[in-house]
Amino acid sequence: MPEQLTLYSHKLSPYSHRIELALAEANVKYKNYQVDLFNKPKWFAAKINPLGKVPTITYGGPDVDPEDPSPLSFKLAESSVILQFVAELYPESGLLPKDPVEHAKVLFFMDTVDRHFDSPGNEWMGGRTESYEGYLKGVEMIQGLLSEGSEFAVGDCYTIADACIAPLLSRFKITYETDIGGFPVGQGHKLGEELKAPKFAKFMDYTQGMLERPSLRDSNDEAYLAEMWKKLITERRQ
Amino acid sequence: MPEQLTLYSHKLSPYSHRIELALAEANVKYKNYQVDLFNKPKWFAAKINPLGKVPTITYGGPDVDPEDPSPLSFKLAESSVILQFVAELYPESGLLPKDPVEHAKVLFFMDTVDRHFDSPGNEWMGGRTESYEGYLKGVEMIQGLLSEGSEFAVGDCYTIADACIAPLLSRFKITYETDIGGFPVGQGHKLGEELKAPKFAKFMDYTQGMLERPSLRDSNDEAYLAEMWKKLITERRQ
Ligand SMILES: N[C@@H](CCC(=O)N[C@@H](CS)C(=O)NCC(=O)O)C(=O)O
Ligand SMILES: N[C@@H](CCC(=O)N[C@@H](CS)C(=O)NCC(=O)O)C(=O)O
Repeated sequence: MPEQLTLYSHKLSPYSHRIELALAEANVKYKNYQVDLFNKPKWFAAKINPLGKVPTITYGGPDVDPEDPSPLSFKLAESSVILQFVAELYPESGLLPKDPVEHAKVLFFMDTVDRHFDSPGNEWMGGRTESYEGYLKGVEMIQGLLSEGSEFAVGDCYTIADACIAPLLSRFKITYETDIGGFPVGQGHKLGEELKAPKFAKFMDYTQGMLERPSLRDSNDEAYLAEMWKKLITERRQ
Repeated sequence: MPEQLTLYSHKLSPYSHRIELALAEANVKYKNYQVDLFNKPKWFAAKINPLGKVPTITYGGPDVDPEDPSPLSFKLAESSVILQFVAELYPESGLLPKDPVEHAKVLFFMDTVDRHFDSPGNEWMGGRTESYEGYLKGVEMIQGLLSEGSEFAVGDCYTIADACIAPLLSRFKITYETDIGGFPVGQGHKLGEELKAPKFAKFMDYTQGMLERPSLRDSNDEAYLAEMWKKLITERRQ
């Protein structure tokens, strides 16, 4: 019997969503426990992740109630590390290429996503920087890395590079379609218009492909995200 | 014949040093090209790394002069990604455990080093934050992850987790021994005193072991680093 796997996650969290996508693509049976991030249970930091963040997984040990975690299971945090762990556990999923060069391309893509795409994107959406120029630069970098002649980030099958960026792409689309974010009103829509330029076509095609992928489509609750963001931003502005 | 491997590096760069250590531990023959970071040659950003950073490696393609790189080689940047690539290329080196759980522990250790140790350390040494509390917190986190009953970070052999942190440990030691850094005078020595407390003994023992490791000892030029830091800090203050 395979070892138990429990994912501690939250619907708002793109990093949790990464793991859900990888597990769905690898066809893994697991428990998904939603942690109330607005009122965190004490056992979470005490027994699962001292930093109190999702995603965190437990692997192995007895098959217990997620609210009563066993000290015997392996605990792992940080979405990029968890993605690689999932790929290692299920090598037949093809989530990580075996060839060292292709493998390295996947890891470099993920590193670029976190460093140059997610990070400036968060700054802008959170209203900590006025301009989305940093974010657009990230879009160009990502576009430059995208596999030629394939719908995937690297090579010609779905890897953890795709699982890493897809949740950000779906949230990004909500931002420029609804204009909800910590930026000045209108900036979201303006970015949406800029992205229609031919020079971003490859990136936008890739985005579209990722959004249509069943693993994402079945786990993408745009209405919930838009509503929650609106609420959180309004609260913060008061 | 094995593929050519060229490392573009700089003696001041701890991230370059990581790769040198991993390659030395894996007994790999390679070319080490020192990039003049203070007067970067144009071909470096154009042909090796658009971001102009070291370390970057080239792998495969024809065996060329490092100053005239071939478009046919694979280019790879980001020290953590390069470390993993080296470990994948030379699996018999043991630089990355095969067991998925041990493997994940190595990656999580490396992630913690970059996020919670290197990053606050740089802030403090660069004079961008007054207090070294953030850094000491990182020391505690690292200490909490260290393998029990072994001289290595994870498990009982040298892995890329050790190669990732060792160059930072050697630079850290210079800082608290010489008091050279962007912090207020005396703070480096003060930190050195604090680290003598019994609660940091495990971390300090690990540090000592790493500093004595031949791969580090043979590539550690403390006098050069101290002199260059002093020069750079004095220049900045003028
Ligand atoms: N670098 C982490 C980020 C995780 C993270 O920031 N999670 C957020 C949700 S999106 C969280 O748990 N926040 C709760 C908290 O920090 O208290 C990863 O990639 O897993
Ligand atoms: N995250 C990168 C950091 C690389 C980095 O910052 N390298 C510095 C030297 S320590 C550099 O090349 N600086 C030159 C520049 O940015 O122009 C890594 O881990 O490889």
